Amino acid sequence: MEFLSVRKDEDIAYVTLQNPREFNALSLKLLQELDSLLQEVAEKREVKVVVIEGSTKAFCAGHSLREIENMNVHEVLKLFQNCQLLMRRIREIPQIVISKVEGVAVAAGCQLVAISDMAVASDDAKFGTPGINSGLFCSTPAVFLSRNIGRKKAVEMLFTGNLITAREALEIGLVNKVVSSSMLDKETEKLAKDVAKQSLNIIELGKRMFYQQLNMEDFQALNYATEVIALNSKHPDAVEGIRAFFEKRTPIWNDNLKTII
Amino acid sequence: MEFLSVRKDEDIAYVTLQNPREFNALSLKLLQELDSLLQEVAEKREVKVVVIEGSTKAFCAGHSLREIENMNVHEVLKLFQNCQLLMRRIREIPQIVISKVEGVAVAAGCQLVAISDMAVASDDAKFGTPGINSGLFCSTPAVFLSRNIGRKKAVEMLFTGNLITAREALEIGLVNKVVSSSMLDKETEKLAKDVAKQSLNIIELGKRMFYQQLNMEDFQALNYATEVIALNSKHPDAVEGIRAFFEKRTPIWNDNLKTII
Amino acid sequence: MEFLSVRKDEDIAYVTLQNPREFNALSLKLLQELDSLLQEVAEKREVKVVVIEGSTKAFCAGHSLREIENMNVHEVLKLFQNCQLLMRRIREIPQIVISKVEGVAVAAGCQLVAISDMAVASDDAKFGTPGINSGLFCSTPAVFLSRNIGRKKAVEMLFTGNLITAREALEIGLVNKVVSSSMLDKETEKLAKDVAKQSLNIIELGKRMFYQQLNMEDFQALNYATEVIALNSKHPDAVEGIRAFFEKRTPIWNDNLKTII
Repeated sequence: MEFLSVRKDEDIAYVTLQNPREFNALSLKLLQELDSLLQEVAEKREVKVVVIEGSTKAFCAGHSLREIENMNVHEVLKLFQNCQLLMRRIREIPQIVISKVEGVAVAAGCQLVAISDMAVASDDAKFGTPGINSGLFCSTPAVFLSRNIGRKKAVEMLFTGNLITAREALEIGLVNKVVSSSMLDKETEKLAKDVAKQSLNIIELGKRMFYQQLNMEDFQALNYATEVIALNSKHPDAVEGIRAFFEKRTPIWNDNLKTII
Repeated sequence: MEFLSVRKDEDIAYVTLQNPREFNALSLKLLQELDSLLQEVAEKREVKVVVIEGSTKAFCAGHSLREIENMNVHEVLKLFQNCQLLMRRIREIPQIVISKVEGVAVAAGCQLVAISDMAVASDDAKFGTPGINSGLFCSTPAVFLSRNIGRKKAVEMLFTGNLITAREALEIGLVNKVVSSSMLDKETEKLAKDVAKQSLNIIELGKRMFYQQLNMEDFQALNYATEVIALNSKHPDAVEGIRAFFEKRTPIWNDNLKTII
Repeated sequence: MEFLSVRKDEDIAYVTLQNPREFNALSLKLLQELDSLLQEVAEKREVKVVVIEGSTKAFCAGHSLREIENMNVHEVLKLFQNCQLLMRRIREIPQIVISKVEGVAVAAGCQLVAISDMAVASDDAKFGTPGINSGLFCSTPAVFLSRNIGRKKAVEMLFTGNLITAREALEIGLVNKVVSSSMLDKETEKLAKDVAKQSLNIIELGKRMFYQQLNMEDFQALNYATEVIALNSKHPDAVEGIRAFFEKRTPIWNDNLKTII
């Protein structure tokens, strides 16, 4: 891998975007590498959480405007289709994905934060969708941004191009936590570990359930959830988990079994 | 009724969950009793608001894990189908349902708060969906939780299993008000009375309209709302209400008439 | 125009509701005038932002109850259908619409704030949907109110009829900014100018994209956005915008061309 580095710490994989000359912009090459890596992470089932972070003091500056300028429309479409595949990958892998944000997360960088299951930011981080400033409306970032935050603030970000602070991002629901820069590693790890102590089988089941039901009518969703929870209740990890609860001990998950509902 | 007690105060019914040994867990028996009671409340039309509260210093600890552990998968499905019927009942009765939360509201207890039309909490209340800790993902609570709060916070609650404070619940939109424990009765009553002064016919019409339109495309919803408000404008309670407005007096509703649009 | 006044300041049109005797209520006549005016604004393409404000110290008190009282049901339906046309117009014009709120914005006045792309309020402004107090449930205001704010607060506003402060409106996402009354003009202008510096062609493309995708399933939306952004990338205003970005200068938009994707 040329544009990524990875380190594994127990049940957590830390993936670092390595494109520092372009503030970690999502070049076509980087997109493809990240997609392949996450596919591998999903298949190997060795970690339960993936943390995405930027190299240097920037999270991600979006797509590379240089790259887009030099492409014809078919090549641009291919670039964004690759980005779409990555977004689907993040949604579909069994692991929980956490964006750890220091510095700027703009345009597709802000989209990466929005598609992530959770996000932690340092208090000097900035978020935005400034594409409109260059005549290139942040259409793709708009999709998950507007599924994280309210309409009024989404319009403001998308049509003024202005950046918002980490504090504002927290208030409107784009990130889970904001901490000082010096605490960012530790607090992200803490959040990741709170997930990593769960069963990967159940994380997988829950993640699929959660996002599927979001797009359903209220009681269609509840009916689906009812089927899932009934089946879940006799999954080996639930049988073990409930027994451990009554025995006041830590459950021992069957994480190596691929017994997914 | 074995697991509920009810008292009526003018136009408001107070329903107390009476399963103190299990922190008011929603056993199959309790679910069925609450469903029957609300059906009766809907038919009798003697109150305009239902307040649900816990006995002792807990709101509701969710389903009974003991019960689930001892059931086979068909019995578990039946349990959750009964819970689903109760959720539908809360949605479909003409009355506004307010959860009054002291202590813990977790798993299906948190779901009860989320499906309620409104909720008031004491400042020491805690909310959460910790099922994943026992390998039983809170799939059914996830549905209405994720229709009350943003995605990022919903994921955090569901996949870490961590509880949140009443103050956080207020900030993210899960409850309407947080007050000190000593003021909880009074503030809940105040909110209930603000609804109970309205016409039950119009509360019913409005509640049905509100939730139906939420699941529609923007202008499909507005078109539906346009039909409803035009018909509503000549309902006897609107004719009386508008006249009373101009005569600067309190309207006298036709609450005993079942003239529903 | 009898119930509106308009002034143009560079790329921004300021439209003032002129029905001071009824706190700028949206009479049938006013609705029709505003719809016609916005149609003209859309066709002329001379401004990029429309600011709607109230004459006197009220933004808008909703529909005229006097008018509704004196209409039969067919006339009331026609009134609300005209209001629906206006809401569609606001959604479909290429310009960004900002509500500038001083004093009360209630019932359809609150709806006007909610359908607007953005809103700025003075700190003494009040918002509400008090129709239920007169037996006329705010069904039409409920639609966009509930697409701006969470369910719990929407229910509270709709079923108690109580007004909320500007500060609360900000916290729940109904408005973008709250400022002191003396700063309202200046801060609204600032926000409007941040949009007015963009290309009208791209504002138009972005506005249509943004609202269309909101009603789609997550990845249906992302697929649509992918097509739009690829086409957008070779729009003359994007070609110019990206070039200007690298040349560190202000882009010169083709705003007079009607080359819309």
